[in-house]
Amino acid sequence: MSSHTGQSAVTVLGLGPMGRSLAGAFLDAGVRTTVWNRTPGRDRELVARGAAGARTAGEAVAASPLTVVCVVDYDAVDAVVRRPEVTDALKGRTVVNLSADTPDRARATAGWAAGHGVRYLDGAIMTPTPTIGTPAAVFLHSGPEELYRAHRPVLAALGGTHTHLGEEIGRAAAYDIALLDIFWTAVAGYTHALALARAEGVGAGELAPFAAGISAILPPVFEQAAREVDSGHFSEPGNPLTSAASSMAHIVHTSEGHGIDAGVMRAAEGWARRAIGQGHGADGLARIAELLSRR
Amino acid sequence: MSSHTGQSAVTVLGLGPMGRSLAGAFLDAGVRTTVWNRTPGRDRELVARGAAGARTAGEAVAASPLTVVCVVDYDAVDAVVRRPEVTDALKGRTVVNLSADTPDRARATAGWAAGHGVRYLDGAIMTPTPTIGTPAAVFLHSGPEELYRAHRPVLAALGGTHTHLGEEIGRAAAYDIALLDIFWTAVAGYTHALALARAEGVGAGELAPFAAGISAILPPVFEQAAREVDSGHFSEPGNPLTSAASSMAHIVHTSEGHGIDAGVMRAAEGWARRAIGQGHGADGLARIAELLSRR
Ligand SMILES: NC(=O)c1ccc[n+]([C@@H]2O[C@H](COP(=O)([O-])OP(=O)(O)OC[C@H]3O[C@@H](n4cnc5c(N)ncnc54)[C@H](OP(=O)(O)O)[C@@H]3O)[C@@H](O)[C@H]2O)c1
Ligand SMILES: NC(=O)c1ccc[n+]([C@@H]2O[C@H](COP(=O)([O-])OP(=O)(O)OC[C@H]3O[C@@H](n4cnc5c(N)ncnc54)[C@H](OP(=O)(O)O)[C@@H]3O)[C@@H](O)[C@H]2O)c1
Repeated sequence: MSSHTGQSAVTVLGLGPMGRSLAGAFLDAGVRTTVWNRTPGRDRELVARGAAGARTAGEAVAASPLTVVCVVDYDAVDAVVRRPEVTDALKGRTVVNLSADTPDRARATAGWAAGHGVRYLDGAIMTPTPTIGTPAAVFLHSGPEELYRAHRPVLAALGGTHTHLGEEIGRAAAYDIALLDIFWTAVAGYTHALALARAEGVGAGELAPFAAGISAILPPVFEQAAREVDSGHFSEPGNPLTSAASSMAHIVHTSEGHGIDAGVMRAAEGWARRAIGQGHGADGLARIAELLSRR
Repeated sequence: MSSHTGQSAVTVLGLGPMGRSLAGAFLDAGVRTTVWNRTPGRDRELVARGAAGARTAGEAVAASPLTVVCVVDYDAVDAVVRRPEVTDALKGRTVVNLSADTPDRARATAGWAAGHGVRYLDGAIMTPTPTIGTPAAVFLHSGPEELYRAHRPVLAALGGTHTHLGEEIGRAAAYDIALLDIFWTAVAGYTHALALARAEGVGAGELAPFAAGISAILPPVFEQAAREVDSGHFSEPGNPLTSAASSMAHIVHTSEGHGIDAGVMRAAEGWARRAIGQGHGADGLARIAELLSRR
């Protein structure tokens, strides 16, 4: 087991790329760290760096007042923690669940925790593994403020910015899912763009610097749309929906002409065309958010 | 007409948000600028600032050695320039077409230009209207290098970075369409995220700072995927496709649970599921580009 003698201690359940990064950051900060993963052997490097490798999840959670769970989703969380051995060991201890899932699942897990005397915080990680332990990491938390305050010093070992979004336990997952919506949609668009560029004889490395430029122009576009959506006032756009729909159609046309599936852009164009059909063609993209919100 | 006496002169055809920005930047740089738009009245502010407002497109192109065309697409370009009055006036002059469309349309327009003695450069604008005339603007060009060099000094009035991508006339449009693919997909994802956040009680203004954070994490993700696609070597990812597909499913589930259409994410998840089904679940997102490229 670990030879660390620091006063703080943490257990990490789940040693995928993110769980390993979290455990590594705790170790780097001198936090006594116990690790466990369903599939054995994933702890090797961490144990070599001083982590305690537990044989069971129950043994792992018993080793620390705080357990961080980071597995693929809440089905996996349930498979790990909703077993008598583990649930018993967690009684009176705290779980910070940094696995991603839906707000409803976060609420259900909090209900389970309350029913078993487990102190529960939900959270989300908004940045990739290389950011963990650095100032670039971004963590969102929700749940009892007092519990968050109590564990904030240990969580600080993960680096970056930690934001407590409120006591409503589903809040971190709500932000997470909206932000992942942006991330995964953008990434899907990028992979499609790479295929389209290749079909036109443009290499991924040639496109990459300009692709970075595209991500740089998003924040002001996002901010303007956010202001319009929150105010319900749609100002004259720098780029009207009619122009956007025209560009989208070019993308669909060119990619399908190369035999490349354009399902993502077809669906996006559909949103723009619907907003135009409802008389909003001279407005900007914020109208799409309004359209999607309408019941 | 204009009272400017600078030695350079330009005509701008098309006075939508972008055409007006271009003409404004030329004026600011002291270039003698003639403007025309299909719908009259759009030139008012520009004329007040010193532009010459032409009554017809033919009159407009006759006023300058260089004509910049910036209308919604190439159907609109054709409607403006492929008329005897205008085509005749363009003979021996240069057109820089900064309207967006497909590479095929750029090639067809170059063919028309060659057949009528019009010197032709194609181009694309990769940044929004507020960047025009500032260092943040990004312009792509393709076509005869010598022609590009000759007009480069006047185009410099538009500010920013100008890149000549090569003599193949469709090159600028190829980059444009791939980059717009990234831009419009990301923007569509963002509008969907705003609707999803609202349904979860999270305001657009609350989400906005974190949304900006998402755009900041894209460049390294893009670069890694570009390296993998170009090399055909897929390294162990920080975020495997199985994990991505799980997140995508949460987004679809939560948004449809709120009655919000999730067509874009459904299509994106389909790509991830197909790559997983082909045995690439442990790889990263670059596999999607490879999958889409396969015939
Ligand atoms: N990687 C990133 O960049 C990143 C960024 C932000 C957030 N996240 C989130 O962090 C979480 C973990 O992500 P990850 O990147 O480490 O990889 P992942 O592929 O999402 O999760 C892998 C982990 O989940 C475990 N797991 C899966 N099903 C299980 C089950 N039924 N029972 C027990 N354990 C199970 C795996 O154990 P085995 O080894 O036994 O399969 C492994 O420990 C996810 O929710 C992800 O969305 C990741
Ligand atoms: N706005 C941006 O942020 C941005 C950024 C990068 C690139 N672009 C590209 O720049 C180009 C112009 O965009 P924009 O923002 O100015 O607005 P837009 O809505 O794309 O284009 C409006 C212009 O197109 C003209 N037009 C449309 N159909 C026509 C036709 N059949 N005949 C003659 N003229 C026609 C309009 O004339 P009327 O006034 O008579 O309708 C107006 O001048 C587009 O290709 C766009 O993709 C724009």
